[in-house]
Amino acid sequence: MKIGNIIVGQSGGPTAVINSSLAGVFKTAKELGAKNVYGMIHGIEGLLKERYVNMSEHIKCELDIELLKRTPSAYLGSCRYCLPSVEKDEAVYKKLFEILKNLGIEIFLYIGGNDSMDSIHKLSNYAAKIGSKIRFMGVPKTIDNDLAEIDHTPGFGSAAKYIGTTMKEIISDAHVNGKEFVTIVEIMGRNTGWLTASSAIARMDDGRGPDLIYVPEIDFSVEDFLKKVGELIKLRKTVVIAVSEGIKTKEGKYVCELGDTGVDYKDSFGHKQLTGTASYLSALCAGKFKCKTRAIEFSTIQRCASHISSATDINEAFQAGGFGVRMAAEGNTAKMVVLDRLSDNPYSIGFRACDIAKIANIEKKFPTNWLSNDDNLVTKEFLTYLKPLIQGELAPIMVDGLPRHLFLNREAVKGK
Amino acid sequence: MKIGNIIVGQSGGPTAVINSSLAGVFKTAKELGAKNVYGMIHGIEGLLKERYVNMSEHIKCELDIELLKRTPSAYLGSCRYCLPSVEKDEAVYKKLFEILKNLGIEIFLYIGGNDSMDSIHKLSNYAAKIGSKIRFMGVPKTIDNDLAEIDHTPGFGSAAKYIGTTMKEIISDAHVNGKEFVTIVEIMGRNTGWLTASSAIARMDDGRGPDLIYVPEIDFSVEDFLKKVGELIKLRKTVVIAVSEGIKTKEGKYVCELGDTGVDYKDSFGHKQLTGTASYLSALCAGKFKCKTRAIEFSTIQRCASHISSATDINEAFQAGGFGVRMAAEGNTAKMVVLDRLSDNPYSIGFRACDIAKIANIEKKFPTNWLSNDDNLVTKEFLTYLKPLIQGELAPIMVDGLPRHLFLNREAVKGK
Repeated sequence: MKIGNIIVGQSGGPTAVINSSLAGVFKTAKELGAKNVYGMIHGIEGLLKERYVNMSEHIKCELDIELLKRTPSAYLGSCRYCLPSVEKDEAVYKKLFEILKNLGIEIFLYIGGNDSMDSIHKLSNYAAKIGSKIRFMGVPKTIDNDLAEIDHTPGFGSAAKYIGTTMKEIISDAHVNGKEFVTIVEIMGRNTGWLTASSAIARMDDGRGPDLIYVPEIDFSVEDFLKKVGELIKLRKTVVIAVSEGIKTKEGKYVCELGDTGVDYKDSFGHKQLTGTASYLSALCAGKFKCKTRAIEFSTIQRCASHISSATDINEAFQAGGFGVRMAAEGNTAKMVVLDRLSDNPYSIGFRACDIAKIANIEKKFPTNWLSNDDNLVTKEFLTYLKPLIQGELAPIMVDGLPRHLFLNREAVKGK
Repeated sequence: MKIGNIIVGQSGGPTAVINSSLAGVFKTAKELGAKNVYGMIHGIEGLLKERYVNMSEHIKCELDIELLKRTPSAYLGSCRYCLPSVEKDEAVYKKLFEILKNLGIEIFLYIGGNDSMDSIHKLSNYAAKIGSKIRFMGVPKTIDNDLAEIDHTPGFGSAAKYIGTTMKEIISDAHVNGKEFVTIVEIMGRNTGWLTASSAIARMDDGRGPDLIYVPEIDFSVEDFLKKVGELIKLRKTVVIAVSEGIKTKEGKYVCELGDTGVDYKDSFGHKQLTGTASYLSALCAGKFKCKTRAIEFSTIQRCASHISSATDINEAFQAGGFGVRMAAEGNTAKMVVLDRLSDNPYSIGFRACDIAKIANIEKKFPTNWLSNDDNLVTKEFLTYLKPLIQGELAPIMVDGLPRHLFLNREAVKGK
């Protein structure tokens, strides 16, 4: 196995462990004797402007690799760039392949989610079309856990661990005065409820946990919701509810749009404000039940809280990156690294390279038969699935009381 | 030194370390040979209903004490009960002192902030008036750091550590796409800017940090704000701003009220919605600069994030609780435990008991001469003050991937 030059990019929304995959790519590539490992600045969007770095000039020792594994956000910068179809704009492809040729690239790795896998799909198809030998490999990443073929996506476990930890703390805080009080916590997931369902792990030995969970896979009924909340207030006084940002009514309207009452509510610059899902439901409960309510949005914090990452997740992300390099070095192209669960107990994971066509643009929904009507809100099967993914911690490297990260001065990397 | 029965309560908004003070009270009281250590359920409000526990029945070993130190929110439950003046309602005092007498209480400790110290003040005055020998001692607690006489309040350091850690992560995430993007982060502090100013510690070795800080001690000008943000977008594209929830215009109007444009924006239950400070400013920037913006509220998470507490803070909170017991055992009453800074380097703290009259109902503002116009946003003096308070971590005790806490089934404790 002999490999020449490699280029790697990061794309889409960051996770707490997307840099661990990058570290895995870099370390394995160097171990396999790669000549140069280039990093795209801001993914394909930056590469098109010839913005890239030689990673060896920035990651210089084992400690840098350890820091990179613990660094939130995308070290190389990310983008939300969608490649046009070849039919629509072949010039973009010509330009990209010209840049790759000039750099002597043999392997192209892209760490990302659904959209990024679409790019791998298109690029590998184009390579086949023009007879290019460049191999294209996807490395999975998304907190949303919505990729097909894979047991779970790197990034999901750490977000779930953050959500479980913080929900426990929020629930303790919500109960502190023993009064009627409704807290609505909004969790990421526009189309899938994986993360919101994961909040169920916050249920403590003492029995306190989230009281209701709402995922986008199930139509949301305002009437039903208010009925249930009303019953719970009578029963427990303090109620904590987890909702996905993307829950919709059966008419297909986002709940966050219901706050838009038709009144033309604009600020002085004419920018129309939409209320968030949690704040809308929180206001609704305040009005209906005349009690204190609170809306909490985990916002981007849930995808960048590297200080409470899952060690299992960090390690799997690292291994997925490394495996991607190995597979490409062995001649694979047009594939994504996939994690298969070999067993639940003991937890065991295998890696394979799966055809990208089976993954690109497919969204894996949360199985609603994993929701339950009892107090645990989810089934034992889901907990068996989820729990191994949040195990272990990789202590942040603390300097002067705060976690240290690895930083790349991307602004200094000029393109053409 | 011989002590009989002690009762302790927790009051006001929780902190990540209020239970560490409780642990310090309990452990020291037992070491000094206290007969019984009672805990008020939901502070004075619960005590008036004779809701209390004998803490030895619930905290049974050293591991319980370690868990308690790491447990967020108030283990005994809290309240926001304000004692009436004796002139207005002496019956409340008679009832309270009757309950204390029946329990054979010699020492009454209250862990709390400004309002709680007002209770200690009133109760000790009443004790003097009726010739009661019960000693009343306050143990300081507030993330707001706004108590007089004290170098800093237990709870502040952990909140600042959470804010510094999370701001670093948010800033990394905000810069990920390298596009024009304004993030407004709302931090607790209705009247004082201690915590918001603390976000300045998130500035990294690489130079990236919050770009602007707004505290309630300084009048907020929307016009000035937009001018500065506009300049920063041109300079850096990505801008991250920390604002106190309680910033006001020079006319004395809360910024979060400015979103109230006079349009009668109500949900279907007639509950009027107010936009938060961050979401108002975020919408304002979106309208003005036509770029992506985001509002993030740390909300209650910043006061209950025990998983990233400062070890210095946990230990000082523990010691403050223990010192309160010792001082009361030595005969002191009508006092609060105060932390004095003996030196910055090496950091050294001394404890003393200070007259409660000097503390109750006094609010310590953030010294605005600690704000700076340079890129650090705060002066070296403030950083010298702040940094020791966030040092060290006390690893959470993890069980099955999540932090374990100590739980008291408060609902089961019925009163009369």
